[in-house]
Amino acid sequence: MSKVLNNIEVLNNIRIVLIQTSHPGNIGSAARAMKTMGLSQLYLVKPKQFPDKQAEVMSANATDILDYAVVVDTFYEALKGCRLVIGSSARHERTIDWDVLDPRNSAERLVKQAYSGRVAIVFGRESSGLTNDELSLCHHLVHIPTNPDYSSLNVASAVQILSYECRAAALQKYFESNDALEAEISGKDRLVTVDEMEGYYNHLEEAMIVAGFLDPAKPKHLMTRLRRLYGRAKMTQSELNIMRGIVSAFDRAQRK
Amino acid sequence: MSKVLNNIEVLNNIRIVLIQTSHPGNIGSAARAMKTMGLSQLYLVKPKQFPDKQAEVMSANATDILDYAVVVDTFYEALKGCRLVIGSSARHERTIDWDVLDPRNSAERLVKQAYSGRVAIVFGRESSGLTNDELSLCHHLVHIPTNPDYSSLNVASAVQILSYECRAAALQKYFESNDALEAEISGKDRLVTVDEMEGYYNHLEEAMIVAGFLDPAKPKHLMTRLRRLYGRAKMTQSELNIMRGIVSAFDRAQRK
Repeated sequence: MSKVLNNIEVLNNIRIVLIQTSHPGNIGSAARAMKTMGLSQLYLVKPKQFPDKQAEVMSANATDILDYAVVVDTFYEALKGCRLVIGSSARHERTIDWDVLDPRNSAERLVKQAYSGRVAIVFGRESSGLTNDELSLCHHLVHIPTNPDYSSLNVASAVQILSYECRAAALQKYFESNDALEAEISGKDRLVTVDEMEGYYNHLEEAMIVAGFLDPAKPKHLMTRLRRLYGRAKMTQSELNIMRGIVSAFDRAQRK
Repeated sequence: MSKVLNNIEVLNNIRIVLIQTSHPGNIGSAARAMKTMGLSQLYLVKPKQFPDKQAEVMSANATDILDYAVVVDTFYEALKGCRLVIGSSARHERTIDWDVLDPRNSAERLVKQAYSGRVAIVFGRESSGLTNDELSLCHHLVHIPTNPDYSSLNVASAVQILSYECRAAALQKYFESNDALEAEISGKDRLVTVDEMEGYYNHLEEAMIVAGFLDPAKPKHLMTRLRRLYGRAKMTQSELNIMRGIVSAFDRAQRK
């Protein structure tokens, strides 16, 4: 692979493997879940029924994922070419000897490897999960931390959560740049400068003195509290215009 | 609330609000998704059909969530008592002026606030999301970063992802990375409830009308802009007391 993948293309290297799925509707829902998160490679090991009308219906137009799904007879075939295989496990008892990861950590490892090759996340049967032989082909297990009193996570929901974590890991920059996104606002929606805010605070302070709310002899941290509140909100230019307008209006009205 | 909540109990303070859900099956799937992650409080604003057999079937025995679901007529009722409200938005176009968070950051904020009171995550209609009026009652929006070419995320899948992130935040004590400003929450520093903020907005609105700043015949989105600003800041109880004090002082002074 000579081409350098970008963070979206890399998701095409993450394979979702479903083993002996009983309900074709679950295959369709899984396809939909994958596609919402930008994953595209679906492998089906001995599905009970596929292709299937119910799978199509549940895929909600993610039919391309179903059309390109690879149906194989053995788990091993589904893993060919994969450099990292993580098995999804709902159960605790079998996992004692295992390196069990959480979804976030799994996704980070998968995405990292996916830049240089294929990787897989494996989901076992609806009823009984993965066999010991299947587990032995996995490098790690991932456990989604469900409510111990009700761990009835549908296979498609598990696919949704892990696909989401993979997308999140691939988009890491998106997550880290939230604050930057807020700041990247231009024109009227530019944040005000410190000196413009000072102008507002002075204006507000004077008006509050006239109104008798602020006693300059006993200011009691009032301005500090207000600075903290407005500082947190981070006003835009147009919002500051409104706030100054309000203070001016009250000030004019009270001086009449 | 004198009892200190543990990190699992805290999930009971996170309310899932579904607005005008068309398909009762989605309500059932959402209940199942919630329960797998340990959330329990479901509020339904004008559901098309509820209670319903299909909802029960899709809940896969999470029927207790459905049995205790609170059905209300208005969005406002569903938010009573909530200190932090985050609206789920699939669409980008409306969100320009908004503080849009990613699911992880949203969950961290929700869990942190949930230690001292109720919070809500809101999901709009399957077809059309949230109205502008509904958005104006939210403090933030959360956007699940879907594939831009296929963002067909079912409402129950969105509930699944956000509930999962809330559970992950509650379990992993992710709080270190959070806003330092929201660090210590107790007593007077608890965030105000939605209904307390409504009281403030009504008070401010009346005073601005008397001051001649707000023309009720031509309101020009003034209140919407103010809601957005203060919503972003998220006032504490003691800050709200100050703000109400300021408005009262101006109002008394101008009426003299």
